[in-house]
Amino acid sequence: MNREQLFENIKRKRSFLCIGLDSDPALFPLSLSSVKQPIFEFNKAIIDATHKYAVAYKPNLAFYEAEGASGWEQLERTVDYIRKVDPSLFIIADAKRGDIGNTADRYAKAFFERMDFDAVTLAPYMGRDSIEPFLKYEGKWSIILALTSNPSAADFELEIYKKVIEKGVEWGSPDKLMFVVGATRPEKLAEIRRLAPDHFFLVPGVGAQGGTIAEVAEAGMNSRCGLLVNISRNIIFAGKGDDFASDAEKKAAEAALEMSSYII
Amino acid sequence: MNREQLFENIKRKRSFLCIGLDSDPALFPLSLSSVKQPIFEFNKAIIDATHKYAVAYKPNLAFYEAEGASGWEQLERTVDYIRKVDPSLFIIADAKRGDIGNTADRYAKAFFERMDFDAVTLAPYMGRDSIEPFLKYEGKWSIILALTSNPSAADFELEIYKKVIEKGVEWGSPDKLMFVVGATRPEKLAEIRRLAPDHFFLVPGVGAQGGTIAEVAEAGMNSRCGLLVNISRNIIFAGKGDDFASDAEKKAAEAALEMSSYII
Repeated sequence: MNREQLFENIKRKRSFLCIGLDSDPALFPLSLSSVKQPIFEFNKAIIDATHKYAVAYKPNLAFYEAEGASGWEQLERTVDYIRKVDPSLFIIADAKRGDIGNTADRYAKAFFERMDFDAVTLAPYMGRDSIEPFLKYEGKWSIILALTSNPSAADFELEIYKKVIEKGVEWGSPDKLMFVVGATRPEKLAEIRRLAPDHFFLVPGVGAQGGTIAEVAEAGMNSRCGLLVNISRNIIFAGKGDDFASDAEKKAAEAALEMSSYII
Repeated sequence: MNREQLFENIKRKRSFLCIGLDSDPALFPLSLSSVKQPIFEFNKAIIDATHKYAVAYKPNLAFYEAEGASGWEQLERTVDYIRKVDPSLFIIADAKRGDIGNTADRYAKAFFERMDFDAVTLAPYMGRDSIEPFLKYEGKWSIILALTSNPSAADFELEIYKKVIEKGVEWGSPDKLMFVVGATRPEKLAEIRRLAPDHFFLVPGVGAQGGTIAEVAEAGMNSRCGLLVNISRNIIFAGKGDDFASDAEKKAAEAALEMSSYII
């Protein structure tokens, strides 16, 4: 998928919502405790209920790896299921990988060849060597951590995020590279938009972490939208009972409705 | 395992060798092409042949993830096998994970509870939030990327590695925290040793990437050894034929022999 196609999907759905599949079995409703692949069944119900309102899904790999080989299988099934439900959905592996050349090659193979992800999140610490193998794939995306939404982003990120943005813009065009920019620092989001006017930003931190759609849209949009705003827990764990999927649907619909006012 | 136990193992084996299990099926001998779990069978042969000379093994997760659920199963079997062969071996998940609190919790659970790794490599970009969940585990280790051996470490690492070392020393004692410091910059290794006199360093970059055991030992040792020197390809892919395990044994023995001269 290229940037124009992604923008077309956003206009058609009037939404730039990415739903984070941080699918933690400890928070699932009781009815799922006896099924064989509870993560997949949970995801399936969430995807069925919310895909009209979302342009992207973002499985957070930690929650799958914590279940071992079975978690990995459920991740693969989830990706396949999203593709089947709506092939235009943009699927992000929230993996935050970052390793040297021959190792990064393998991660790229895992996410882009073995599984059909559109994008993978990458940690920039080790520099260009760790990003380049992902940029080789036509139609696939690298999403580089720039300034994240957690409190301790102040430890190191605040010192080098501008350099990360500058290097990132140099390494990858707006058709294959995005940045992670947290919603919890809207003033920085506006500043980063000036440094990277055309690139998409994946924005976590709305909801549970305190950011708002309005602040993010006002500080971060460009003429091609340029935003994927991620919401995880506030949607997928909106309800804890057997009607969790319809609770999630309501929250996703609310978020999309708010987003629609920013889509021309 | 605490630092004293690790040092005892190093003295007993007269080696501070860590063998990197970057087990790439594309480089396996033909005889493994028909077995059901080739990565596990390859690792088993390598471990059997080399464990006398090594104090640690380091599976590189990318090579397992590239094989999907089956790769994950073979990783779990590899960890169990290392434990069975010699319970004193230190097992490192080379995962370079780095994510915020609740996600980092899950990764810690995957590596320290679901699997019996002693340590996991972590990317520091997101700061303390991404390290702390791993430090909670008694007897387990966090190994933070400081200055790596790849060329593009110059992009960002050179600017902040000192701060990473300083913060790391503050966050975790030498009994539960190590740093990754590449062998390809021995002058920096000596400088980092001054910043963190008591912490262990995991040192990649010897062999294929050009670093030497002598340079690393001279620049990086402390009174409790303080080094785990990792060699991957130069040992595990020393030979490409059916006698690959005995070729690996020779290379591991050579490395350990050189190391023994530095152990008092």
